[in-house]
Parts: sequence; C-alpha cells; structure tokens
Amino acid sequence: MSPKIVTAAMVAIGDELLSGRTKDKNIGHLADMMTMVGIDLREVRIVADDEAAIVEAINAVRGRYDYVFTSGGIGPTHDDITADAVSRAFGVECVYDPEAMALLAAMYERRGMEFTEARKRMARMPLGARHIPNPASTAPGFAIGNVHVMAGVPQVFQAMLDALLPGLQVGSPLLSRTVRSPFGEGDIGSPLTEVQKNHPETSIGSYPKFDGKNFSTDIVVRARDPQALAAAEADVQAMIQAITEARAKT
Amino acid sequence: MSPKIVTAAMVAIGDELLSGRTKDKNIGHLADMMTMVGIDLREVRIVADDEAAIVEAINAVRGRYDYVFTSGGIGPTHDDITADAVSRAFGVECVYDPEAMALLAAMYERRGMEFTEARKRMARMPLGARHIPNPASTAPGFAIGNVHVMAGVPQVFQAMLDALLPGLQVGSPLLSRTVRSPFGEGDIGSPLTEVQKNHPETSIGSYPKFDGKNFSTDIVVRARDPQALAAAEADVQAMIQAITEARAKT
Repeated sequence: MSPKIVTAAMVAIGDELLSGRTKDKNIGHLADMMTMVGIDLREVRIVADDEAAIVEAINAVRGRYDYVFTSGGIGPTHDDITADAVSRAFGVECVYDPEAMALLAAMYERRGMEFTEARKRMARMPLGARHIPNPASTAPGFAIGNVHVMAGVPQVFQAMLDALLPGLQVGSPLLSRTVRSPFGEGDIGSPLTEVQKNHPETSIGSYPKFDGKNFSTDIVVRARDPQALAAAEADVQAMIQAITEARAKT
Repeated sequence: MSPKIVTAAMVAIGDELLSGRTKDKNIGHLADMMTMVGIDLREVRIVADDEAAIVEAINAVRGRYDYVFTSGGIGPTHDDITADAVSRAFGVECVYDPEAMALLAAMYERRGMEFTEARKRMARMPLGARHIPNPASTAPGFAIGNVHVMAGVPQVFQAMLDALLPGLQVGSPLLSRTVRSPFGEGDIGSPLTEVQKNHPETSIGSYPKFDGKNFSTDIVVRARDPQALAAAEADVQAMIQAITEARAKT
C-alpha cells in the first residue's frame, strides 16, 4: 500500500516581513500544523504588498500543490490588497460578500461601533469564495479553489487555521525520530551517507548545532512507514556507537 | 535627484524549515540588515533540500534582483546539496576549490582532527566562485554572479553576512517612522487612505495589534526623502488627533 501524499505551499504577504519590522510567526506555525496532520509543506514565498507580486506567487503555486495557504493583507486599510490580488489571480470579480457584510454589521452593532467604509473592506472577497470562520475577531478569511486566505495577525491566523484543519484532506503522516550525535557533521557525514543509501525509503536529515566552539548534530530520520523508520533509526544509533568505540580506542 | 534603488531576494534552503522542526532566524536577520544598509529585500522563498527546487528558485530570482542571498545546505553531509544546485543553476562544474581545501586542511591539522571525505565536501563550490569568509567556523561560503551562498546555522550565517556587507552596493536607505494609534484599523482606514493619497512619494503601512480583545494599530510611514517622510508623519499624527477629539465630543 503506497502512502497517500498531500502537498501544500504558503504565500506570506506583507512589506513588514521583508523590511524586518515584523518577524514572521505564521510560517513556523503552519509548518508545525501541516506536519502534525500529515500534509507536506513544500514551498513558502514571502512577497510584498504588491498586487502583481501576490498574483504571480499565487498562480505559480496553486496549480502545483494540493493546498495553498496565505497570511496577511485582509484588514481594512489601503495596503490590504490580498482580496483584490486573489480575485485577479482567479480572474473573478472582487465583491462585498453579503454574508460577510451581515456578520460584520451585526458585530459592530452589538459593540456600538460604526460600520465604517474601511471596515466594510473586510467583507470583500472573490465572487463565489467560501468563508473561513474567524472566532478571534469575526471578519472572515476566505477560500477559492485550493487557496485559503487568512489574516496576518498570528492569533487570528491560528484561529482561522484551527477552523480549517478538520476539513482538509490529509496524507499518511510523515513520522520522524531524532538521534542526537555528540559528533559534528564532518565526523558522521561519510557513514551517514551509507545509512541513507541502505534506507532509501527514509529521508535522513542532519542538522548541525554550534555552541560557539564545537559542532554537534541532530540526525532526523523521516519515513511514512513505521518499520522503515525503526530500521533506519537503529542503524543511525549503531553508527554513532561505532564512532564512539573507535574514538575510545585511540 | 532620484534615489538609487538596490534590490535583493533570499532563498532559504532546508527541509527542516518546511517541517517546522527549525524556526528560521535568518530571514528576519537578513531583512533587518538589508533595511539598515539600504537594500530593498523584495522576495523570499523557502525551498526543500531538493536540487530541482533550489535550481528553479535561484534561477527565478537571480535575473530579477540585484542580489540573491541563500541560507543552508553547505555542510558536509549527503543532504547538503546547495553547491551542486547553484552550480547547475549557473551551468558550471561543481569542484573542490583548491583554496578552500587548503584552508580546511590547515584548520583540521591545527585542531588535530581528520580531514574526512565528508569535511572535504565543504570545499565544493561552482568553478570560478568567490569565497565568502567564515570567521565562525572556517568553511567558506561562496558567491557566483550575484548569488551569495551562506550557511544555515544562524551564528555562521550572520558572520558570513557581516563579512559580505561592506562590499555590497547599497541604495538610498528607506527611512521610516512609526506612529502608534490607539484605534483599530477600522477606525483609521478611511482617513489613512486619504493621507496616503496626499503623500504619494511615501509608503504608509498599517499593522494591527490584537491583545485578545481590542485592536490597536502601528502606522509605519516610509520614504527615501526625509522631508516627504516628515510631512506624511505630521499628517498621520494630525489624523489621530482629529479622531481623538471627535470621540471626546460624543
């Protein structure tokens, strides 16, 4: 039985991510959630608040992966242009969604606040888009085709993603085990290449850590099949044991 | 005198960034440094340890921006394939660079460590590439054309970037001022659109903050001309003052 693979890409939108003013938190969160549910995040693009750049990024990835997730640019101000850009990417009109207008009007009435022209912008989305509920602050995200458009504020992004996750198709989860190596990559590189060759159905990553003086390594074995994972993990551990013993002799 | 604009893109390479295992620190650091020296970071792509994906990303951005910076995949293990991918992107051979071999051989001899086949991999780079010095751990990064290839470990990435910065062409720095608004974007959206229209030579961004209950906003005015910046900033402050006074009356 071959494992089912479901793929995704993310487009993070915002000048503030590229100027350094804001340090993105949504990419890492989406990556964690995708790994947890069994979707392979394959690519991320960070683009400016520039309609042409957003359209290009969305159109480059939406035909290539099962899902696309975006963050940012769906608020009420002039620099929030994601709804327009996604509409253009799909070649449909960007409209004030009647259901979103009703949700927002009711919420502002309840709070005794004016439903300004700016706030009405948050009801704009591509014609025919589906809502993504926003339990944090009402104004919905939206989905059209396989593209899911969410807010950039991390609390709101996370709430929208939580609302979305139960409805996504997922693949066989990619399992992983981490083996910590007290040796640097230079010491384990050649034998680790052999372990990888002997376990082609696993993907073995090696992540150096540097404490300012010495390198150590986290070796991460990944596989969809638990038996393949266990066999490769055992060989990595045996490799480290062999290096330790060889060193003890010298 | 029209301001000089220098642009850049980044390609961050590594499965661990897409699985959530590692939360990237290099993108935010590069963004900060670019803003500081006056280079516009326009786009970032995060790609997997996959040669085709790396080649595609590098070739997509290197003709489009003045500089490209990459992070990750230049260590000694089998999953470090950035040197091969960049060589392929430029259509040149990937070779053991004699000068890098000499540097590494001397360093390992000094430290009484074996210069293993794995460690020799760190001397591989595209034929004709220039070195990027690595004061943190010797193994150099490299540059070919406008593409600058650096390590993924943040301490090493930062040390390589520090070595690189003094030699880069830079543009007129983009200046910015932040005005804090106690009002949410819905309250300031329409008047802020007017301010932006009246100051077309500035770029005004609006960044909502959410404390779990209420939104406030950071308004960031950016310009290359100090006078244009000051004029737009004054109008943003006047706008907030006007909203505050209007509220006090009701």
